[in-house]
Amino acid sequence: MNAIANRQFRLAARPIGLPKASDWTLVEEPVREPGDNEFLVRVEYVSLDPAMRGWMNEGKSYVPPVGIGEVMRAGGAGEVIASKHPGFPVGSKVAGLFGVQEYALSNGKGVQRVDTALAPLPTYLGVLGMTGMTAYFGLLDVGAAKEGDTVVVSGAAGAVGTVVGQVAKIKGCRVVGIAGGAAKCRWLVDELGFDAAIDYKSGDVRKALREHCPKGIDVYFDNVGGEILDIALSQLAMHARVVICGAISQYNATEGVKGPSNYLSLLVNRARMQGMVVFDYAPRYGEAAREMGLWLAQGKLTSREDIVAGFDTFPDALLKLFRGENTGKLLLKIG
Amino acid sequence: MNAIANRQFRLAARPIGLPKASDWTLVEEPVREPGDNEFLVRVEYVSLDPAMRGWMNEGKSYVPPVGIGEVMRAGGAGEVIASKHPGFPVGSKVAGLFGVQEYALSNGKGVQRVDTALAPLPTYLGVLGMTGMTAYFGLLDVGAAKEGDTVVVSGAAGAVGTVVGQVAKIKGCRVVGIAGGAAKCRWLVDELGFDAAIDYKSGDVRKALREHCPKGIDVYFDNVGGEILDIALSQLAMHARVVICGAISQYNATEGVKGPSNYLSLLVNRARMQGMVVFDYAPRYGEAAREMGLWLAQGKLTSREDIVAGFDTFPDALLKLFRGENTGKLLLKIG
Repeated sequence: MNAIANRQFRLAARPIGLPKASDWTLVEEPVREPGDNEFLVRVEYVSLDPAMRGWMNEGKSYVPPVGIGEVMRAGGAGEVIASKHPGFPVGSKVAGLFGVQEYALSNGKGVQRVDTALAPLPTYLGVLGMTGMTAYFGLLDVGAAKEGDTVVVSGAAGAVGTVVGQVAKIKGCRVVGIAGGAAKCRWLVDELGFDAAIDYKSGDVRKALREHCPKGIDVYFDNVGGEILDIALSQLAMHARVVICGAISQYNATEGVKGPSNYLSLLVNRARMQGMVVFDYAPRYGEAAREMGLWLAQGKLTSREDIVAGFDTFPDALLKLFRGENTGKLLLKIG
Repeated sequence: MNAIANRQFRLAARPIGLPKASDWTLVEEPVREPGDNEFLVRVEYVSLDPAMRGWMNEGKSYVPPVGIGEVMRAGGAGEVIASKHPGFPVGSKVAGLFGVQEYALSNGKGVQRVDTALAPLPTYLGVLGMTGMTAYFGLLDVGAAKEGDTVVVSGAAGAVGTVVGQVAKIKGCRVVGIAGGAAKCRWLVDELGFDAAIDYKSGDVRKALREHCPKGIDVYFDNVGGEILDIALSQLAMHARVVICGAISQYNATEGVKGPSNYLSLLVNRARMQGMVVFDYAPRYGEAAREMGLWLAQGKLTSREDIVAGFDTFPDALLKLFRGENTGKLLLKIG
């Protein structure tokens, strides 16, 4: 057992702006054997999420920051290869917060066993994982989307955005996505069934929103913040709900976050803007997983993963998120 | 009847920044006799409200803008002096949107008869008028304030703010006001029973909020926007409610509204920010009026009006709002 070397990305410094190579140290240490009620996971996929950028900052947030010198926090999925835990025998497929490392010891806290006969392992980091839960509860609970609503989602071709749009369609909403690039936009409409997609990199987003949402926006699900949030606020319908899920355009801002100048549209339209953190919905994950599992099986919901291979590529792979290069859920495949 | 001359302030130009004298024309025209189902009101008090600044701008809002050349829209109260309307006989005391003029013809739409034996006429523009309704429904309905909550209100010594704070105290909340100047702050604590008041003109608002709200802010009722909103957002408690009632610091901005940079605190704290327009609560005004009338009678609620005399002084009197010179409800007394 001690022969196994575990490579890990540890946080070396708190980044200013985009994380750079020197913000990480790649460490190799021997794997310890599981103690009682512990098990060892060989990580096969690491989930790469915009939220990770926030965890690298100092200061109060919804989870404590990753400490300097600690293994970078990340979701992941893999297989149990050694176990002294009755609930997680060797051979179990599992998902949990395993960190950016090849092997993870766990006591089972926050870890789920998953059934790869029902869906492939990556799907448990996507539609059936935190990504899917975020989209589901953000759209239906915080956003209170209902049949006939016009739903606009930013970061529409990203992990959460693709699920938000599809679930909104399933629920009978009119769905408009905002994404970067013509190829992504075509894919959203042609493959995922969005009613329209707006390429923010070319053309006038405000004009396009006005055209595609003639009655205004009932639910705006925001993953990006910045200018796009401001434009969306200017197009709200009465009693609109704005779901603040993320703000990827702002996470690397070195000169302070841009606040939404059009926030008074909330007053004019008696609208609300509400933040969400998916962990709050843990007691209801089962409810969402059952419904989304069914939709997957029925072919109503598509899970799309964008898989980058090679543990070493982590620092650059993470940046794909901030460069808008991924389509669907970005995963790092190990080994 | 035709002998009566009616003086009116009409909007001459759309102001840039603070309204100036040349944005108004003072017009005198003879009063027309009421037709069938009309009555004539001699206006005794004109309500001066921050919202009036918004009505002077072009463009979509929650009510149409006042047109150039039109009598300026304003709430008011007075006495019916001629009538062909069975519901509003001569001698009735009334409140409604009479505009900035000495006499107003009305068909009764949106006009209420008021009983000056129960409360003096100005109170029907303050605690028992739109001001009070705004405070009541904003705090209790949009803000969902409940016993034990920490409530912070900005513009605390203004018309709405004084009522928000008092109602919050009656409902068992801890109440902290933010106002400009030591005198106002003393008055809020000593006379109105606020638990604390923070003078934003002297000292560090963030530090003071942290001190007076050690568990964070549960309900933030915002009348001012700008820097104060941003600071309040940084001090939210989990599941906080931010009520967007107004943004007086921004109404005269010539370089665009300052958006709240700390809006991501909504995400971290699973909080919501929601706008309100009091007119939506019209079907429930009676409910609030009954409860607040009782509190007034019991001496639990104080109505404070800041009365400026002289119709001619309107253009400058209005500016007192934006200079933060009023304490309580600002009214213009005519005649």
